[in-house]
Amino acid sequence: MTVLILTSEEDVTADMVVAKLHKTGVPVMRLDPADLPGKAVLSAGYSHGDFKGHLSVNGHVLSIGGLRSVWVRRPGEPAAHAPHPSPWLTAETRQALFGLLYSGSPRWMNHPRNADQARLKPWQLRVAHLSGFAVPPTLITTSPRLARQFAAEHENVVVKSASGPPPGDPALALPTTLIGPDTDFSGVAAGPALLQRYVPKHADIRLTCVGTRLFAARKVAEPGQVDGRYGDTGHAWEAVPVPERVGKSVYEYVALAGLAYAAFDFAEEDGIWWFLECNQSGQFGFVELETGQPISEAVALWLSQREADHRVPQFR
Amino acid sequence: MTVLILTSEEDVTADMVVAKLHKTGVPVMRLDPADLPGKAVLSAGYSHGDFKGHLSVNGHVLSIGGLRSVWVRRPGEPAAHAPHPSPWLTAETRQALFGLLYSGSPRWMNHPRNADQARLKPWQLRVAHLSGFAVPPTLITTSPRLARQFAAEHENVVVKSASGPPPGDPALALPTTLIGPDTDFSGVAAGPALLQRYVPKHADIRLTCVGTRLFAARKVAEPGQVDGRYGDTGHAWEAVPVPERVGKSVYEYVALAGLAYAAFDFAEEDGIWWFLECNQSGQFGFVELETGQPISEAVALWLSQREADHRVPQFR
Repeated sequence: MTVLILTSEEDVTADMVVAKLHKTGVPVMRLDPADLPGKAVLSAGYSHGDFKGHLSVNGHVLSIGGLRSVWVRRPGEPAAHAPHPSPWLTAETRQALFGLLYSGSPRWMNHPRNADQARLKPWQLRVAHLSGFAVPPTLITTSPRLARQFAAEHENVVVKSASGPPPGDPALALPTTLIGPDTDFSGVAAGPALLQRYVPKHADIRLTCVGTRLFAARKVAEPGQVDGRYGDTGHAWEAVPVPERVGKSVYEYVALAGLAYAAFDFAEEDGIWWFLECNQSGQFGFVELETGQPISEAVALWLSQREADHRVPQFR
Repeated sequence: MTVLILTSEEDVTADMVVAKLHKTGVPVMRLDPADLPGKAVLSAGYSHGDFKGHLSVNGHVLSIGGLRSVWVRRPGEPAAHAPHPSPWLTAETRQALFGLLYSGSPRWMNHPRNADQARLKPWQLRVAHLSGFAVPPTLITTSPRLARQFAAEHENVVVKSASGPPPGDPALALPTTLIGPDTDFSGVAAGPALLQRYVPKHADIRLTCVGTRLFAARKVAEPGQVDGRYGDTGHAWEAVPVPERVGKSVYEYVALAGLAYAAFDFAEEDGIWWFLECNQSGQFGFVELETGQPISEAVALWLSQREADHRVPQFR
């Protein structure tokens, strides 16, 4: 029973997990969808009510019946490395590869269908509500009037992007930014803005959920600090216990969202962990490095388990 | 309680359904996501464990709490009509619009997450197996050797695209094509091929499923005809009853796939309905026109019902 890792070639975090999997003796296949067709060959046959499929990479053959789990970790675009790439070849290759994998019954970390849904930030806030997390008041709008009203009501407000920074090379940094009530909000009409009440936090919290295992880490924030991802404050991540109530909410959230892996970001203020976001493919290498928490080992163990994960149903 | 239709402006089929909805007196809002931001304004507020949202189009305001159902019918790309469109503006607007709609609890025809999954043709074949349909032996492969072997075994084989014809303007027709065992299969290595045993059909069957209502139509095929979508044989679509066994499989399929609407294509041979594909957004206007089956009315009724559809869960 093999673990399939869909990843691009240069991926240090995947290397960490692969090393752990090798230790457990579980066979591993690594595939960059960009290498299909080419280095990789696939076949899926549907006959007489049955299904048989296989995938081979560099001559190593994997039968889909022998597929234990799939880790979707930074896969390339299907057929991107083809001699004559095209949107149509990508579409056809995506159909073949994911059609094959969806036809089997591996455990997914995470199922692409649930991952897509989990990327919607406003939906995250709603699921966070339903899971019992504390969520800072938030508004997403294209109405300058409502944006102005929200900023006036909450005084200290941050603005951030819902989908992430604009694509481009070089990548543009777009830190979460504190704005005042006197800001000119007229531009909101041209593109939706996400406004959130500023949390005067004492620390950033990163909580990584791997199946049922939780790893929380805390990094002290400088007074008035807004976006912990930018700038070095000299503080390091330190492992902290997970409050029971937060743990309960995390399990509720990943069950509602159908996720086997999730990285939660919180802002800690007077002991309250304010939910900021949940990244279904959030990095964990930096946390493991600073705290020594065995996250890559937990990922490897989850992937190597045999039993089906009933939280991630196969067909719906 | 309003019905929201996500559609581009020129859409005759949507017009048919809107006319039926007007008759029932149910309020309807029509939105092309391409018109957001611009003609449309949205706002989603997450505060104190609660969620409030609204959407307004041309001054008509819809509260998300008053949203009954959403019909995803040919929506344009979010922000496509903006004065300065960009991939980032589209990504941000998609987050805002679908984040808002996912945060409510409307009934979906169909939920975009399930729709995306349902487009995978190889997965359709697997779900068809599991639902008890007869499925012609099919192979999807990038291996010329296996393609050759499949063609030799089944003698009469058709080749078709999994994702549809290549995008482009003018659109390229790509009919399902009969090929012989002497075909040169070497090109299969450059892009996956979908091969299927040819069914010497007596008729094409289109079965439209709207909630729990089924509408089957049959069109006589000329001997040796391969792809019923191209060329006029002079035969028309005629309403036919749904065999009990097929109906059972249809209900099983839409339950597994989480679909409220689905258009099934079958090839009829000696009374057997061979499953070819299930299009979750398949057209129904042409069938209604020729058979008089009240499909647009059924869609309007489904959209105007109040009760939640437990087959399409909100969060997973």
